[in-house]
Amino acid sequence: MLSDPFANRARKLDAADELAPFRSQFVVEPGGPIYLDGNSLGRLPLGAIERAHAVVEQEWGERLIRGWNEGWWTLPERVGAKIARLMGADPDEVIVADSTSVNLFKLALAALRARPERPFILSDDLNFPSDLYVLASATESAGADRRLEVVASPDGITLPQATQAEALETRRGEVALLALSHTTFKSAFVHDLAAVTALAHQAGAWMLWDVSHSIGAMPLDLRAAGVELAVGCCYKYLCGGPGAPAFLYIRRELQEQLANPIAGWIGGAAPFHFETEYAPARGLRRFLTGTPPILSLTLIEPGVDLLLEAGLDRIRAKSVRQTEFLIELSDALLAPLGFELRSPREADQRGSHVALGHPEGWRINQALVERLGIIPDFRVPDNLRLGVCPLYTTYAELHAAVLALRRVMEKRLYEEFSPHPAGVT
Amino acid sequence: MLSDPFANRARKLDAADELAPFRSQFVVEPGGPIYLDGNSLGRLPLGAIERAHAVVEQEWGERLIRGWNEGWWTLPERVGAKIARLMGADPDEVIVADSTSVNLFKLALAALRARPERPFILSDDLNFPSDLYVLASATESAGADRRLEVVASPDGITLPQATQAEALETRRGEVALLALSHTTFKSAFVHDLAAVTALAHQAGAWMLWDVSHSIGAMPLDLRAAGVELAVGCCYKYLCGGPGAPAFLYIRRELQEQLANPIAGWIGGAAPFHFETEYAPARGLRRFLTGTPPILSLTLIEPGVDLLLEAGLDRIRAKSVRQTEFLIELSDALLAPLGFELRSPREADQRGSHVALGHPEGWRINQALVERLGIIPDFRVPDNLRLGVCPLYTTYAELHAAVLALRRVMEKRLYEEFSPHPAGVT
Repeated sequence: MLSDPFANRARKLDAADELAPFRSQFVVEPGGPIYLDGNSLGRLPLGAIERAHAVVEQEWGERLIRGWNEGWWTLPERVGAKIARLMGADPDEVIVADSTSVNLFKLALAALRARPERPFILSDDLNFPSDLYVLASATESAGADRRLEVVASPDGITLPQATQAEALETRRGEVALLALSHTTFKSAFVHDLAAVTALAHQAGAWMLWDVSHSIGAMPLDLRAAGVELAVGCCYKYLCGGPGAPAFLYIRRELQEQLANPIAGWIGGAAPFHFETEYAPARGLRRFLTGTPPILSLTLIEPGVDLLLEAGLDRIRAKSVRQTEFLIELSDALLAPLGFELRSPREADQRGSHVALGHPEGWRINQALVERLGIIPDFRVPDNLRLGVCPLYTTYAELHAAVLALRRVMEKRLYEEFSPHPAGVT
Repeated sequence: MLSDPFANRARKLDAADELAPFRSQFVVEPGGPIYLDGNSLGRLPLGAIERAHAVVEQEWGERLIRGWNEGWWTLPERVGAKIARLMGADPDEVIVADSTSVNLFKLALAALRARPERPFILSDDLNFPSDLYVLASATESAGADRRLEVVASPDGITLPQATQAEALETRRGEVALLALSHTTFKSAFVHDLAAVTALAHQAGAWMLWDVSHSIGAMPLDLRAAGVELAVGCCYKYLCGGPGAPAFLYIRRELQEQLANPIAGWIGGAAPFHFETEYAPARGLRRFLTGTPPILSLTLIEPGVDLLLEAGLDRIRAKSVRQTEFLIELSDALLAPLGFELRSPREADQRGSHVALGHPEGWRINQALVERLGIIPDFRVPDNLRLGVCPLYTTYAELHAAVLALRRVMEKRLYEEFSPHPAGVT
């Protein structure tokens, strides 16, 4: 084995970590894998086990339909109000609903309809591709003259503000909405939320942030920046469980101006009057459509409670230290083996994962998972993502993962695995 | 107390009921309420308790992201294929996704776009109002010339085929889609699925059925009738849990022709290639949009399994006998107290609940719930709905509920409750 100075460093950093006790609030299987994919699906909070018992066995099993009056009905607002505290929004500015994609569709289409004189949605190619599909769908529903324009990142990793400003300038007066992922899914590049929002506003565009890869990993301050719209996901750093429903944010000043493009009963003014004509509820509730999946929805709360208890400043500080440690490890131990850093080196431009490129990325990822019990994830064509989740990731795990990566290369463990089925490597 | 001949009848009917053993497959709290609202939220199957433990503690807690490759990814199709067996569809014609409302939006909008020469969606005012809101939303997204037309029921209880035929004839060549609730939510009136579908087809319209209040309560045969589209809900007779995700059906022959109006990553041809341009998956999967709520989704299966085991013919036979028994009880014991039957007397026109009108319906409902431990539900302005769910409802419960209704009237128990807040009674 290597004798490297990092093992001691990892031990010391873990010993000094004031968030370390939070790890015991999650299910961590003894002898289980080193899990560095919390950026895709967060670990299970212990509190969610209790909650699952209660909602299934007591609330559904015994209270039955009465559950709606005993908490379920207001759950979208109640959980939304907690999530609001993680993003610098007021409690009545966030609600849980549907999936991120459906929420994005609703908000983008509502924005296009509210701004008929501006034909364009502007985005960039660092955005999650699904967001681009959904934004294109929204333009299609808004009318034949509406279009999505996608700005290209010069390096596939970052998007300079000057490029953004230029794109906005070229379409001056024509952009209804600038819609971006705040932390981009592949490189973890983080847009400057306040500065980019200000650029959008200078061009008269509204700003929509998808904060799926940011929420719970860093403080956000949407209200202070004057952000109009946002969506996000609850199953990554919020630890809300697989496919947990998503949330949407609408700045209070806009809520009564915007119409839900998929008007449904639960977002109506008087859902139990059963009028054949729709009238929207006051405030954000109008953006609900169908009955929310209560079991999945209620399990979002325990993870959010832990994040609120830990505090986002401490979480961000640890996340930065952990991704810096990873980059240091990678520079020293992995770069010589052909790994290339694909995330920004500047901490303020980097979210809570580190992307490493390697031509054999796909097979390396498989060897890590199948042979060494390390779970990162892989993104085509050749990116390994190592995600840190400050509530439960340890420095020792990061160190062990990097040693495992070295082992995969030195023992050529990846060679027993097949190339990517679609031939991406 | 009354000495009536019905108590013995109820006992005998329960003793002879071959579905009676299924009741023990559900959580029925000892001394708990008599539950006649399974048409809104079905009881908790015991199997769902086990499933909840497994999906939370093992699949999420221990398998983590690997859960996606170990069953979650194909869950929408797998549960859909089982639901297909309850509606006379082929396994690849039904998929679980989103909410009923979001699915209805997608299918109605896709149909309008596929048939640009026909401006109208036709529906009726017995339809669930939310469906009307959603259909109107779909027309709005399809273009300025598209409209929803709502046919009025002559009596608020039924919709004669002649009325339907006339409406279709008036708009000959203009109706893209006839969209109806198969069993209507208030009166339980059941449209003749094959005959009305044939009427639609004669007029060149496609047929879309919302089977939310039918599925699991009676056999359905969508494929045989040539139905193009359908949506439905999993939390009523399917016993899938509060706000369980919904399903959609597209006749196989149409699947490749229709485009999902909310294109999202999970419905794409190669979700992990992360292309910036969307290409749809083959078959029904293209109608998925965002990540499904796995916990709520997986709990649909145990209830569906029980229905498949019991068999829909036996379920329908018992449902008819139970609603007939209720009507007989009501004629004898409630009509003299001012209750009016608001459901069809003809068994083949009646779903699995019985609606009773009474000017004091709102307060009577409250007295039943709060004082006598009977849970029916109430629909404005003055309808009590008594739902039977053949897998767990007993004849003795129906008898007890009717006796309780008499007691509420004779002792004027309703008088201590306030009138409806919106003054509907």
